[in-house]
Amino acid sequence: MDTIERWGMFEIAVRGVETGNPFTERTVAATFTGDHETVTVDGFYDGEGVYRVRFMPSYEGEYAYELDGNYGGGRKTGRFRAVPATGNNHGPVRVANQYHFAYADGTPYYCLGTTCYVWDLQSDARIAETLQSLKDSAFNKLRFCVFPKHYDYNLGEPRSYPYAGTPMDSGVLTRENFQQYTFKTEGNRFDYTRFNPAHFRHVEWCILQLQALGVEADIIMMHPYDRWGFSTMTREQDDLYWKYAVARFAAYRNVWWSLANEYDLFPTKTIADWERFAGILVDRDPYGHLRSIHNCRPFYDYTRPWVTHCSIQRQDLYKSAELVDEWRERFGKPVVLDEIAYEGNIQHGWGNISGEEMTRRFWEAACRGGYPGHGETYMNPDDVLWWSHGGKLGGESWKRFALLREVLSQTPGLGLMPWEGRGWDEVCGVPECEFMQPVKSYYLFYYSFMRPSFREYHFDDTTEFEVRVIDTWEMTVEDRGVFRGKFRVDLPGRCYMAVQIRRRG
Amino acid sequence: MDTIERWGMFEIAVRGVETGNPFTERTVAATFTGDHETVTVDGFYDGEGVYRVRFMPSYEGEYAYELDGNYGGGRKTGRFRAVPATGNNHGPVRVANQYHFAYADGTPYYCLGTTCYVWDLQSDARIAETLQSLKDSAFNKLRFCVFPKHYDYNLGEPRSYPYAGTPMDSGVLTRENFQQYTFKTEGNRFDYTRFNPAHFRHVEWCILQLQALGVEADIIMMHPYDRWGFSTMTREQDDLYWKYAVARFAAYRNVWWSLANEYDLFPTKTIADWERFAGILVDRDPYGHLRSIHNCRPFYDYTRPWVTHCSIQRQDLYKSAELVDEWRERFGKPVVLDEIAYEGNIQHGWGNISGEEMTRRFWEAACRGGYPGHGETYMNPDDVLWWSHGGKLGGESWKRFALLREVLSQTPGLGLMPWEGRGWDEVCGVPECEFMQPVKSYYLFYYSFMRPSFREYHFDDTTEFEVRVIDTWEMTVEDRGVFRGKFRVDLPGRCYMAVQIRRRG
Repeated sequence: MDTIERWGMFEIAVRGVETGNPFTERTVAATFTGDHETVTVDGFYDGEGVYRVRFMPSYEGEYAYELDGNYGGGRKTGRFRAVPATGNNHGPVRVANQYHFAYADGTPYYCLGTTCYVWDLQSDARIAETLQSLKDSAFNKLRFCVFPKHYDYNLGEPRSYPYAGTPMDSGVLTRENFQQYTFKTEGNRFDYTRFNPAHFRHVEWCILQLQALGVEADIIMMHPYDRWGFSTMTREQDDLYWKYAVARFAAYRNVWWSLANEYDLFPTKTIADWERFAGILVDRDPYGHLRSIHNCRPFYDYTRPWVTHCSIQRQDLYKSAELVDEWRERFGKPVVLDEIAYEGNIQHGWGNISGEEMTRRFWEAACRGGYPGHGETYMNPDDVLWWSHGGKLGGESWKRFALLREVLSQTPGLGLMPWEGRGWDEVCGVPECEFMQPVKSYYLFYYSFMRPSFREYHFDDTTEFEVRVIDTWEMTVEDRGVFRGKFRVDLPGRCYMAVQIRRRG
Repeated sequence: MDTIERWGMFEIAVRGVETGNPFTERTVAATFTGDHETVTVDGFYDGEGVYRVRFMPSYEGEYAYELDGNYGGGRKTGRFRAVPATGNNHGPVRVANQYHFAYADGTPYYCLGTTCYVWDLQSDARIAETLQSLKDSAFNKLRFCVFPKHYDYNLGEPRSYPYAGTPMDSGVLTRENFQQYTFKTEGNRFDYTRFNPAHFRHVEWCILQLQALGVEADIIMMHPYDRWGFSTMTREQDDLYWKYAVARFAAYRNVWWSLANEYDLFPTKTIADWERFAGILVDRDPYGHLRSIHNCRPFYDYTRPWVTHCSIQRQDLYKSAELVDEWRERFGKPVVLDEIAYEGNIQHGWGNISGEEMTRRFWEAACRGGYPGHGETYMNPDDVLWWSHGGKLGGESWKRFALLREVLSQTPGLGLMPWEGRGWDEVCGVPECEFMQPVKSYYLFYYSFMRPSFREYHFDDTTEFEVRVIDTWEMTVEDRGVFRGKFRVDLPGRCYMAVQIRRRG
């Protein structure tokens, strides 16, 4: 009997009709039955007469399946066995402890993401470089798009298109005129009812490469940086896309659904459209992968029941991570800061903060119980910018996130929350699970751009605490010994210091 | 005939009764009559049988005066001539162009202040050091107190007390226990109805030293950092103090009245008290010196008619200077940021920002049409901190304000206002007086912590502009030539850059 790991992907391939438009005229679906679940999923046409149905078992044990549809190959049945997960397979990431995340097997997941919008649509060499960069980094989530991107520093053609057809002539584009072509569809000859399976197969290959690295694939399903007509399709075409993409991607355990980047910049989409797409996801993704949507200006209503977590682009030039407390309270869900500006030096204010400031925003967000996200937008002679193309990381902040991830992984229980007892001039995360306890077992203080030469602490008179001083920029960790009662910790009077205080024993 | 410069101080000294309590039982006042004004002012008892009346002529020409009161020396008359102001005597500073300041003779005054709360109550040597530091700096306003200060790093005794009597034993004070003594009056033996004229004479000497340096004396009349009972006197004692101080100080042209530091921290004062003190000022200061009051947490209602300008302590740990636009609109008066945190490294979050951040807040405030204020709180082996004691400036930001003051002095007309046409990711000041003009003669852009490698500008197609690139931290100014239409300015991709764009000719 075939075996597959629990949370692995089991795929059935069958041959069927090639004529007409199989994408719109043909169906295939299968029901999978194990001891603990019965799941029906749609399959999809993968070109050249091949239809596939994919399934991710959420349990171990034997599964039987039955496949059928008008695809032309008739009813099929079979069995396979889901065996225990191994290695870094901890299952999909779920919301856990309300404001946090854990893998399905319970392993905490401290989300530290980055963004390479269309790394997947670059050359093989560039993609390999991106994967190596991710491997060398502490990032465990990557935001990227299915559709190609038309934007400043991104005027080139993608390696492939999601639809059959040919694009407008991009030879006419310049930095000066490209905005005039945004949302223009003239010159494109795409059939928005016929997918290009090779394009999707390649995206899936990328998802799997990320999976191997332990990186969640935060797939941006739609975005408004478009000259090919993909952002202005009809309602029927949109729905066809959503169903096709869900049928293809949902069985990969590391998939997250980002309905859109900057949903509010689409000229023809309404909230009702986004809600309809969310409905398709909720109906057709039986695994309940994480779902959100990312704003330019107004936040989406993250209290909507289908939204699993906030995917925030900061609204203020000056305050971003500092508002995590407020957003946690307002939305009652995990706060992921998918865009808090990018480290770099391009002309745009969203893409030119320093490595220091990015690192500061990361710690500030993390110590308030939120999850920060990174990106790089450094000027480059070949216009290869990490934020869009991937490639090599050239900045300063990314090197410092392994330390943050290590410190976060030391949180007792799962996840930090902002401590109400903190001073007005400090940030402090305490274990979310200890919210009722007057004295916590763990305090992670952060002093941001402030430069105290010392700080005094007093939690109670009896508990012994171990103190470590962390220079988050210089990446040093100093044990300072054991303290009790009211005590003073000397600090170097530099920016970006953290103090980790743990109950002894 | 005696002569005095216009806006100089003319003083009449007379001998009178020494017995009883001359401060409460005796009066002296004089009326001064010139061609353009008739002014009646109260005098004051200066000890040892001497009574004084002081007057600042607002006009040139001959003045006659008539002095009288129950002080015991009878009616006196005399004359003097007010001659033209010379040197740096431009008269008192007034509000001008709604959001700005100018000296009475019309010279623009771009306010860049600092704070040394009780520099005046230190040793002669320290005072001399402070004056030298001010001379070497670009500061043109100093905030300081009449009453001594009891606070962290400030537990010593002042050189003198404003009242006759003796203080509590301060030998018992430590950094750990000092807060228990705040507002405690036990052990003090002061007569709050008998001033110590020597104390006030010394404060006046300090005011005059500042005047000689072109520094405005922003006198903090009351403050809550007190163990001597000066902040918790009775209503009658308070009013006696206000009238005495006004009679002594008002004739010095460089005096500003700050009713209080952190008015909201006094345990026994109400808004009605502050309004009453303001009333005394309005009644008894015939020169209308600038008046404001400084907050800890809630702002005072700066729309009150007696308030000439906002004296703001920032309310947010992260945003301070960034809110100048909002405060201008809300209060409709000059926005002076008297406390935006201090450069230093003490334990308190209000006293440990970097020189870079202080300089950033200065430019940010200035390019939004506000007036920033400085202070230094560096740890010091002798506990001499500029913010309280004066002494030597040890930080980094103060060196950079001469450049800012020079740039501000180049503003056409009087004062900058935030330009509505600026991008979301930049700050830009334009001349307040050109608010109706679609294309301005002057733009002062500031990029704060952002690091653009270039920016593009387009004001109109015909005007020629001269462009200078200012590194506000490195203090370099680069001429970039003349531009017209849409143009691009290359920048070094570093923090803290400004771009000054001036209409040619």
